[in-house]
Amino acid sequence: MWVQRQIRLEPRPRGFHLVTREVVEALPELGDLSVGLAHLFIRHTSAGLTLNENASPDVRRDFASWADAAVPEDARYWTHTLEGSDDMPAHVKAALFGSTLTLPVAEGRLALGTWQGIYLCEHRDRGGARSLVATLYGE
Amino acid sequence: MWVQRQIRLEPRPRGFHLVTREVVEALPELGDLSVGLAHLFIRHTSAGLTLNENASPDVRRDFASWADAAVPEDARYWTHTLEGSDDMPAHVKAALFGSTLTLPVAEGRLALGTWQGIYLCEHRDRGGARSLVATLYGE
Amino acid sequence: MWVQRQIRLEPRPRGFHLVTREVVEALPELGDLSVGLAHLFIRHTSAGLTLNENASPDVRRDFASWADAAVPEDARYWTHTLEGSDDMPAHVKAALFGSTLTLPVAEGRLALGTWQGIYLCEHRDRGGARSLVATLYGE
Repeated sequence: MWVQRQIRLEPRPRGFHLVTREVVEALPELGDLSVGLAHLFIRHTSAGLTLNENASPDVRRDFASWADAAVPEDARYWTHTLEGSDDMPAHVKAALFGSTLTLPVAEGRLALGTWQGIYLCEHRDRGGARSLVATLYGE
Repeated sequence: MWVQRQIRLEPRPRGFHLVTREVVEALPELGDLSVGLAHLFIRHTSAGLTLNENASPDVRRDFASWADAAVPEDARYWTHTLEGSDDMPAHVKAALFGSTLTLPVAEGRLALGTWQGIYLCEHRDRGGARSLVATLYGE
Repeated sequence: MWVQRQIRLEPRPRGFHLVTREVVEALPELGDLSVGLAHLFIRHTSAGLTLNENASPDVRRDFASWADAAVPEDARYWTHTLEGSDDMPAHVKAALFGSTLTLPVAEGRLALGTWQGIYLCEHRDRGGARSLVATLYGE
């Protein structure tokens, strides 16, 4: 069984955002899979997807602080600066945290750990709506 | 053909640990696949999976040194500190090195390069046993 | 439908290189898939694959600048130095940017966003030719 669908995520401010529920609700066919995989892919180069703690908002804020310190806007080595000071750091962060997730499906649900949630990593100040391609496969 | 199974990895100290043999031995059905993929997923937010050199223990030690320098415990921007000074760095490292691996299977074996091995990245001081979900599919 | 093939990428200098066209041309069976996934895997521990902007060469140069600053050759914590000063940083960069990509296939093509391209991340000064395993599956 294969299902493939685009999911639109509404614009969000720069930062790390928990989107597990939104993604699961867009994929009702998860319930038809006894075993399989769910592949999520973001069609952008300045935003990404990663997995991390689904409980404290502190954790998501600290992700943003670390990312801004590790990939600084004012580094003197940037040459691609025409699209704004948040642009090139956003590209690097997108590659570091990743653009794609493959998640196990078991008994009709994502087989995530208790504390795991899906993060939309919005690396631009005004990134706008983001488009995912979700592909479910299994039996 | 789909096979899905949980694999328990015994507690390990903080650091990068080679677990290729342990994972392969838990998946005897690899031998039944002429072509396919093996998906490995860790159900935690402070440990991860990555691929790297399977020979020198030096390499794994240097990974830990780099990670500790790049994601420092004493950075003043951390706010999520209740669970210990190793907690928030562990979350960030888990996202950087990743939680999931998809590996090609050919002629009944993982088609890894000669020098590639699977690392369990244990980012906590006392992370305890870790649980993987392994999903094999192919024909 | 499953197709699995090795793809050889010619030697390239250290840096980030756009290889989308080369990869797609090696996989004519993409055209036979109405829905599926393409899995790309590099069989090395000092080079990798990631997705990012397919337009400005500036972006790829800035990736290299960031990587060299974030994973410095002269850090005093490296102990695995026998294979050259670019070796251990190459291993860490390979793990950070990743060794594998899973990409959605729709209507016979990779369903990449407009600005997305596949980067070969060559982290060594003289890495030589690089070998990929590509696995297509779908229907």
